[in-house]
Amino acid sequence: MNSRLRNLIDWMKETEIDFSFITLPDNVFYFTNYRSDPHERVLAVGVFQREEPFLICPQMEAKEAKKAGWEHEIIGYSDIVNPWEEIEKAVKSRLNSVRKIALEKEHLNISRYEQLASRFSDASFTGLDDTLNQLRMIKDVEEIQLMRKAAEYADYAVQVGVSELKEGKTELEIIAAIEYELKKKGISEMSFATMVLTGKNASSPHGTPGASKVKKGDLVLFDLGVVYKGYCSDITRTVAYGDITDEQETIYQTVLTAQQTAVRAVKPGVPLKELDLTARNIISQAGYGEYFSHRLGHGLGISVHEYPYVTETNDLALKKGMVFTIEPGIYVQEKAGVRIEDDVVVTDKGVEVLTKYPKELQIIK
Amino acid sequence: MNSRLRNLIDWMKETEIDFSFITLPDNVFYFTNYRSDPHERVLAVGVFQREEPFLICPQMEAKEAKKAGWEHEIIGYSDIVNPWEEIEKAVKSRLNSVRKIALEKEHLNISRYEQLASRFSDASFTGLDDTLNQLRMIKDVEEIQLMRKAAEYADYAVQVGVSELKEGKTELEIIAAIEYELKKKGISEMSFATMVLTGKNASSPHGTPGASKVKKGDLVLFDLGVVYKGYCSDITRTVAYGDITDEQETIYQTVLTAQQTAVRAVKPGVPLKELDLTARNIISQAGYGEYFSHRLGHGLGISVHEYPYVTETNDLALKKGMVFTIEPGIYVQEKAGVRIEDDVVVTDKGVEVLTKYPKELQIIK
Repeated sequence: MNSRLRNLIDWMKETEIDFSFITLPDNVFYFTNYRSDPHERVLAVGVFQREEPFLICPQMEAKEAKKAGWEHEIIGYSDIVNPWEEIEKAVKSRLNSVRKIALEKEHLNISRYEQLASRFSDASFTGLDDTLNQLRMIKDVEEIQLMRKAAEYADYAVQVGVSELKEGKTELEIIAAIEYELKKKGISEMSFATMVLTGKNASSPHGTPGASKVKKGDLVLFDLGVVYKGYCSDITRTVAYGDITDEQETIYQTVLTAQQTAVRAVKPGVPLKELDLTARNIISQAGYGEYFSHRLGHGLGISVHEYPYVTETNDLALKKGMVFTIEPGIYVQEKAGVRIEDDVVVTDKGVEVLTKYPKELQIIK
Repeated sequence: MNSRLRNLIDWMKETEIDFSFITLPDNVFYFTNYRSDPHERVLAVGVFQREEPFLICPQMEAKEAKKAGWEHEIIGYSDIVNPWEEIEKAVKSRLNSVRKIALEKEHLNISRYEQLASRFSDASFTGLDDTLNQLRMIKDVEEIQLMRKAAEYADYAVQVGVSELKEGKTELEIIAAIEYELKKKGISEMSFATMVLTGKNASSPHGTPGASKVKKGDLVLFDLGVVYKGYCSDITRTVAYGDITDEQETIYQTVLTAQQTAVRAVKPGVPLKELDLTARNIISQAGYGEYFSHRLGHGLGISVHEYPYVTETNDLALKKGMVFTIEPGIYVQEKAGVRIEDDVVVTDKGVEVLTKYPKELQIIK
């Protein structure tokens, strides 16, 4: 049995959980090494204190799941079988009585919850999210190694993007070139839809790339990441295409200082909110406080957004093995959009920055 | 007020629903024309019988949402505000008492449900999924026009993919070329991760593309689709690269006959299961029944999988305006994987096939 399952089972014993039911695909992957988007079908892991865990999946995926390395029971069901009956059988064949069930309250939908509640009517239900988020929040050596590699590809992607900048090219053309080069290197999946935003389009923190064309005097923002063996990277860089105004440069340098200062503040014991406030104060003191309209960052791992969140209210203290982004930004409508983002790991004594693409202002001529 | 909201409100009046709460991004798009993946943040539409509907979204998205065309109230909240308090306020400012709330039981998670249940403790909750699925299932003229266009791009994508076939090329290289050409045409999003599977890899109905290389004698399977203005296409074609065996050809012709026969059976009034059984019988009679391990198809629209599902047990009768896939397949491990898939619309008297890439066996030399 793998150590991740063992950690979960330890928690189940402490809290007297009979049965943990896991359906969030990223959590299923965490325990099984099997990644799949089941769409509306049921894909789930069942874990018990003593009995054998099971994985239930559509029949046609059973072989892939086994190949991925799941060593315990796999229940494959065809499209005309009710998977909830299979789940009920699997649990009741293992346990005579089920008193306490843990499930992902922040993922499992009401209708699925009703399926379980009616089939295990004597059981009480408790949340499993926080426990899984905590387990996943601290990355082990192997995970960090995969994330280093994911970050390397993100650096490469930005490098490709910057080299593609040319008067008149559209955002989508640049994205196409980036993803083409990544696929040639064997990267089949991005962490999220790649963003290349130019000029005015970059001055919205959540702009959508399209047919806008690169032109002289634009700030061009790249926000992208890759999935490498199930782990995500997430990088943002902003570069100038041709000369920019003094105010645009001031904004850039303010974001850079905020970002670098927050990165340097990372070490075990520091509360997450201190990182956010460090960056936020620098931006506010420069007079751009109202234009930094989002949190400083988010955890990163199997999911592109996961624990811990770097907000101005999160009291949680940094711990070795946490991985998250640090990504302050300033967005002044019609004038400038700048964001700089790194992926960082909390180490024994400080920080390791995974993304390494240069951050000094680049003016592409 | 748009007609989609009006249809929902008609249903709310009939069933005495005071408040409909909509959070599935595809449903939010259906009503607001605003497409966004809010990740863990709250994005929701509130609809009432008489009072003004609202859209609640992260502050930084409020402008985009307005631009997309939502004409009613937009509540933007920052990362340090509790969106559930905003929702409670918005509803209670509109209604003195809330007795019946409709929500998406197949989407809304338990934790969000608990938020609503505690804030509206006198209300009863009922499912909204089926109503929304029914509304979305029948496409109007504009929707079908967008889907025609989405299908055209899917045809083009297969054409690019086939033209890229060459001894030694990897699946990912071919995918890269397809998506590159689409992005150059302004298509920024695929309906799902593009699949190009060659040889043995294609003999699994849910294989994952990777570094497998095209070689003579392979059957190569393309399964892909694009999102065009929010609407999905989904096509599968299988072509031979070099000469194939007689058995592979028999399998191909069996799938083709099954597919074409099912397509011809489409017209208003026919139960969906009849389509599935028509194709399934042809495949079974050819001796490959056990190798057709999935349903015949699925509805298609804003979501790549939606109502109606084409299974051997679905009694629902076809209606004008339904759009779905017809995609029988035969997967014989190590020997052959063949699937042929079209997107079809039920018309007044029969069927319109949206995807038009040729289906006769192509042998690429």
